[in-house]
Amino acid sequence: MAVASDSSENFADQLITTIHRKNSCVVVGLDPHFKLIPDAVKQKFLTIQKYSLEYAARVILEFNIQVIDFIAPLVGIVKPQIAFYELYGWWGVWAYAETIKYAKEKGLIVIGDVKRGDIPSTAEAYAEAHIGEVHIDNVVETPFAADAITINPFLGTDSLLPFIQTAKKHNKGIFVLVKTSNASSGEFQDLMCGSKKLHEIIAEKTRELGKDLTGKYGYSAIGAVVGATFSQEVSALRKIMPASYFLIPGYGTQGATAKDIKCCFNQDGLGAIINASRSILYAYNVSPWKERYGVNAWKDASREAVIKMNEELREVNR
Amino acid sequence: MAVASDSSENFADQLITTIHRKNSCVVVGLDPHFKLIPDAVKQKFLTIQKYSLEYAARVILEFNIQVIDFIAPLVGIVKPQIAFYELYGWWGVWAYAETIKYAKEKGLIVIGDVKRGDIPSTAEAYAEAHIGEVHIDNVVETPFAADAITINPFLGTDSLLPFIQTAKKHNKGIFVLVKTSNASSGEFQDLMCGSKKLHEIIAEKTRELGKDLTGKYGYSAIGAVVGATFSQEVSALRKIMPASYFLIPGYGTQGATAKDIKCCFNQDGLGAIINASRSILYAYNVSPWKERYGVNAWKDASREAVIKMNEELREVNR
Repeated sequence: MAVASDSSENFADQLITTIHRKNSCVVVGLDPHFKLIPDAVKQKFLTIQKYSLEYAARVILEFNIQVIDFIAPLVGIVKPQIAFYELYGWWGVWAYAETIKYAKEKGLIVIGDVKRGDIPSTAEAYAEAHIGEVHIDNVVETPFAADAITINPFLGTDSLLPFIQTAKKHNKGIFVLVKTSNASSGEFQDLMCGSKKLHEIIAEKTRELGKDLTGKYGYSAIGAVVGATFSQEVSALRKIMPASYFLIPGYGTQGATAKDIKCCFNQDGLGAIINASRSILYAYNVSPWKERYGVNAWKDASREAVIKMNEELREVNR
Repeated sequence: MAVASDSSENFADQLITTIHRKNSCVVVGLDPHFKLIPDAVKQKFLTIQKYSLEYAARVILEFNIQVIDFIAPLVGIVKPQIAFYELYGWWGVWAYAETIKYAKEKGLIVIGDVKRGDIPSTAEAYAEAHIGEVHIDNVVETPFAADAITINPFLGTDSLLPFIQTAKKHNKGIFVLVKTSNASSGEFQDLMCGSKKLHEIIAEKTRELGKDLTGKYGYSAIGAVVGATFSQEVSALRKIMPASYFLIPGYGTQGATAKDIKCCFNQDGLGAIINASRSILYAYNVSPWKERYGVNAWKDASREAVIKMNEELREVNR
């Protein structure tokens, strides 16, 4: 039976409890790529008007359900990237919502990778949509109900506060984009503003905003997205924000290795969760799994890829 | 009959043709606030399970349809803010998609205020979702089909290019966040990076990226979001990016006046479109319309508010 994290606890505590229980800091990125989803999954929906947005969305949800079923014993956290659902219109967003619901039923922590950011009144709507609740006259609904989301800090503190306040109210988590993993991330994020880089200033602000949401392990529910592809910056950020959990993308397909990951963790072996998406979901299509498993054994390939990633990351923290 | 803009033309040309035809540079922000939607609109849906996300979404769509019907003779551009739709989950996103479809049927230009921004492969999915097309095996669908969207530049050039390339391919438009209208916008956007402010550097980059998409009136399909609440910055930006269309939020509720707006335009009277949302949609609830019209005459109040805004902005450019 799935053991759900205790949502009456600070998000950072829920996260750490889950990491300990699963002995895994892996985040599986649920990024559906329709073309790469095995035909065996698609077969089931051939009665639906084929090649419609509905068809794609139903295939995606079924794929995610199958993935969640076999990864749930191995990892504690998943991260659907909403862009790959919006790609299929509102049907895709339906699949996003249903994926979150199913993952939570299986006891997983769900980070919605939505990177939202807007002026205060609009940020409040996003916060309520993704980690809060909406009041429709006298009824309360939780539209997406993720456990945490990623947000974009470009608009400044007043745009971040609605997310942080909503997180505080509902014991949810936030990961602020501080230093992203893409090749151009330095273009603006590394600009020197006086004696500091822009991303360092954002890191300091994120740390301050998160102080009020510190849990029993000493970590804040307000974390940061930090690209593992830039190990020098990661090491500096680790010092600036020791109590912030880092959500690290870029393991696997984006090029970061276990060696690059070492500097993401604190001495206590905590402080970072590491995401891989394509290298797990479509492992059947990636070496060395490609050579060992065909597409029909895609689940075995993915399971092996998760087990190997868990082992590599445990080795980093040994 | 609605005259749709010619989608075989550069987006800036479509925009200017529409502005000339309607003699209006007003953008009506379609930001549904459920509480403020008149009961008369809600009545129609009482047979649906009341106070569900579906109920809210159907009320919102009906409200938007009624708004679009009476504003379409007066203005040429609408801007739904997707946050206020996501607030009602995937049902809300359905209302967002249907709102865009209906507005386009009525010949309006639709700017999706989505403020997306992500690493390149993800940005590509967002671009295809909102202004492009998706291939589901051998079938092509256009999930949201807005004419333009707003995007967030924080991740740098490689995160902007997928949007710009998609805009170029499909004759769509982009408005890059350069200097936002919220009170904290200066916190990061005004930081001095060497001899320039961050938002000036982003303005220069946006100008460069837009050069390749210049239309017959000399304006680019790649514009900028610039808050009218900061008139000094707007004047400086007008000089840095003379060929970029400015999408100006903050008229009405956010505090900018016609006087603040003057510096947004070029000498040719072009170069800016001005958004108002709450002050139009819920004019029945705002002075001076509140005193003249009750909630039952909400459409008259809104229509008057649009007419007055059109007149004020024509006066600015006289």
